Amino acid sequence: MLLGRVTGTVVASRKEPLMEGWKLLVVRQLDAENRESGAYVVAADAVGAGVGEVVLYATGSSARQTEVTRDRPCDAVIMAIVDTWEVGGNEVYRK
Amino acid sequence: MLLGRVTGTVVASRKEPLMEGWKLLVVRQLDAENRESGAYVVAADAVGAGVGEVVLYATGSSARQTEVTRDRPCDAVIMAIVDTWEVGGNEVYRK
Amino acid sequence: MLLGRVTGTVVASRKEPLMEGWKLLVVRQLDAENRESGAYVVAADAVGAGVGEVVLYATGSSARQTEVTRDRPCDAVIMAIVDTWEVGGNEVYRK
Amino acid sequence: MLLGRVTGTVVASRKEPLMEGWKLLVVRQLDAENRESGAYVVAADAVGAGVGEVVLYATGSSARQTEVTRDRPCDAVIMAIVDTWEVGGNEVYRK
Amino acid sequence: MLLGRVTGTVVASRKEPLMEGWKLLVVRQLDAENRESGAYVVAADAVGAGVGEVVLYATGSSARQTEVTRDRPCDAVIMAIVDTWEVGGNEVYRK
Repeated sequence: MLLGRVTGTVVASRKEPLMEGWKLLVVRQLDAENRESGAYVVAADAVGAGVGEVVLYATGSSARQTEVTRDRPCDAVIMAIVDTWEVGGNEVYRK
Repeated sequence: MLLGRVTGTVVASRKEPLMEGWKLLVVRQLDAENRESGAYVVAADAVGAGVGEVVLYATGSSARQTEVTRDRPCDAVIMAIVDTWEVGGNEVYRK
Repeated sequence: MLLGRVTGTVVASRKEPLMEGWKLLVVRQLDAENRESGAYVVAADAVGAGVGEVVLYATGSSARQTEVTRDRPCDAVIMAIVDTWEVGGNEVYRK
Repeated sequence: MLLGRVTGTVVASRKEPLMEGWKLLVVRQLDAENRESGAYVVAADAVGAGVGEVVLYATGSSARQTEVTRDRPCDAVIMAIVDTWEVGGNEVYRK
Repeated sequence: MLLGRVTGTVVASRKEPLMEGWKLLVVRQLDAENRESGAYVVAADAVGAGVGEVVLYATGSSARQTEVTRDRPCDAVIMAIVDTWEVGGNEVYRK
C-alpha cells in the first residue's frame, strides 16, 4: 500500500457499467516524509474519503478485494483514512 | 486507474484469436494537471472512445474485468470517457 | 499492451518444465513514435513473430491468457504482429 | 521479493473491514548493497517484525498468499525477517 | 521475463511457513546487452541455479506458476538457466 493525499475528483458519465456508483478520487502519492511525489492515481473510494484527507491505497488486483470493487475493473482503491503515521520515532502526520 | 488522451490506433491482422474484435487505441498518459507524460499504453476500448478524447484506463488484471476483455490477454482497457476533472478546487478539464 | 520490436532470442535448456516448447524472444520496447526506449522484456511468442518485426505484447497475469501460456509461469507474451500504427493522424509504422 | 528496513508505523481507525487486525509498517526499500533507495511501501506484517529490522517483502497479488492477508485488499506483506544476506561473496548484512 | 545474474543469497529463519524450503537468491537485472542495471530482486529458485549464473526470471503472479511456488507468497522466481542469448544477430552471452 502507499500513502496519498486526496486532491480532486473525476466525473465520467459514459463508462463500463460495472463502475456504476463509484466515487472516483484523484490521489497524489506521498513519500515517507509526507511530501507529494509527482505520481498520482485515480482511485475508487471504499471508505468515504474526502478531498484533503491522507489515505492508504492499494493497487493492482488487491484493489478488487473490497466490497465496493470486487470483480470489477478497479486497479486502485482507497482502503483507509490515516490517523497518524510515524517514521524513525517522529510523527510525520496526525489527522 | 490513470487519465490519458487517445492519440492513435493500432491495426494487427495476425494475432492471438482471443483479441478478435478489439479496437486498439494508443493512449498517452496524462499527469494530474492534464499534461502528457512520456508514457503510453495500447488499450482495448470498452466504451466507444475516439481519438482526442480524455479517458480513464485500468491496467493489469483489472483490465480483464470488462465484458469486452474478460478472460482475454488484455492488460490495459479504456473503461470510461471523462466529462470533468478537478484538482485543488480548480477544473483541470471539461469535455 | 505495449509496442516492441523483436531483436533477439534466448535459449535455455535447463528450465521449469511448464516452459517446454516456448520460443523466447527479446523484445525492445518502442515509444509512441517508434523509437526504442531502453527497456526490454523476454517474451513467449504466441503468434509466430520473427526477429525484426514490430509486435504488441502483454505483461503480468494477462500474459497467461493465451493458448500457449495458460497456467504457466509466463509474465510477457507477444500477442499480435502489428500491420500499421497511427498517432496524431500520422502513420508512424507500416509493416 | 525485495529487501527493506522497517522504519515506521501507520495507524488508521476508519478502514475497509477486511484490514482489521493488521499491523501496518512503513518499509523503506534497500538496494542490493543495503542502502536505502527513496522508495517505500506500507506493508502488512505476517511475521512479527519490528521497527529497525531488515525484512523481505512481497508485493502485488503474492502479498495475499499469507494466512494474515488471504483474500484481503493487501498489496504488500512482510513475509520474513532477514538473518544474513551475501552479495559477491561478501556479507552485506547480519542481524 | 527478464534476464539477470545471480549474485548472492538471503537467509531468513523467521518467515511465513509457506516459504519453507525455498532457496532465496539475489538476482541483478541485466539489460539487453548483458550489463547490470541497478535493479535487483530476491527470487525463489525453481531450477537449481547458482551464484554467477545468468538466468531468466518471472515476476508478479506468474512467479506462482511453478511447482516450487504454487499458491505461495512468491513474486519472483528463477525459471530457467540461460545457455545463449542473441541480439541483432550477435551473441551477447554463452554459458
